[in-house]
Amino acid sequence: MNIYDTANQLERELRQLDQYKKVTECLATIEANEEAKALLDEFRHINMALQQKQMSGQEITEEDIAHAQDLGQRASENELVKELMTAEQMLHMVVQEINQIITKPLQEMYAQK
Amino acid sequence: MNIYDTANQLERELRQLDQYKKVTECLATIEANEEAKALLDEFRHINMALQQKQMSGQEITEEDIAHAQDLGQRASENELVKELMTAEQMLHMVVQEINQIITKPLQEMYAQK
Repeated sequence: MNIYDTANQLERELRQLDQYKKVTECLATIEANEEAKALLDEFRHINMALQQKQMSGQEITEEDIAHAQDLGQRASENELVKELMTAEQMLHMVVQEINQIITKPLQEMYAQK
Repeated sequence: MNIYDTANQLERELRQLDQYKKVTECLATIEANEEAKALLDEFRHINMALQQKQMSGQEITEEDIAHAQDLGQRASENELVKELMTAEQMLHMVVQEINQIITKPLQEMYAQK
């Protein structure tokens, strides 16, 4: 079998995972809920800003971290956002496992060096 | 088919890729060549140090970048290292393509938001 065919099969199987469907459902529910959506948007926005700051070599201050943690706290107190975060963690675990499997050849190659 | 079976199949197919075999060969050749090995080790060491600096939120100076570039230049003037770098780029392209395929479901999920 061609490696691209296998990759496409994996892509289809990922969409069919219960963990994937669950995250999709949670996102749709939040999309329809103004409060949850605002919290999630703000939470994502600040995390993205922090990432960009880090990637551009700027220093992350304690204040930045405290702000992000506070917002994370408030977001996770919202039931819908909390449910999404749990679902994302479950999906993330599967994706990580799959990633570990398929990147094994690359890791081994350099570990042997 | 189970998604983990598919991931394992992809892992095996990755090892069988010409591009994968070529990088493995280049690494073995360099391992047996003192000069090439020293250059490559130094090049990797400085890049890793730069990455760690960035990830810990420290500023990357122009001097850091100039040093890394100079070393990259010297490393790529070595025929064996040059061959490895080309082989790594070819492998990287395939891995990127495969990665784009299998992460499509995740990207779509968040793009729809």
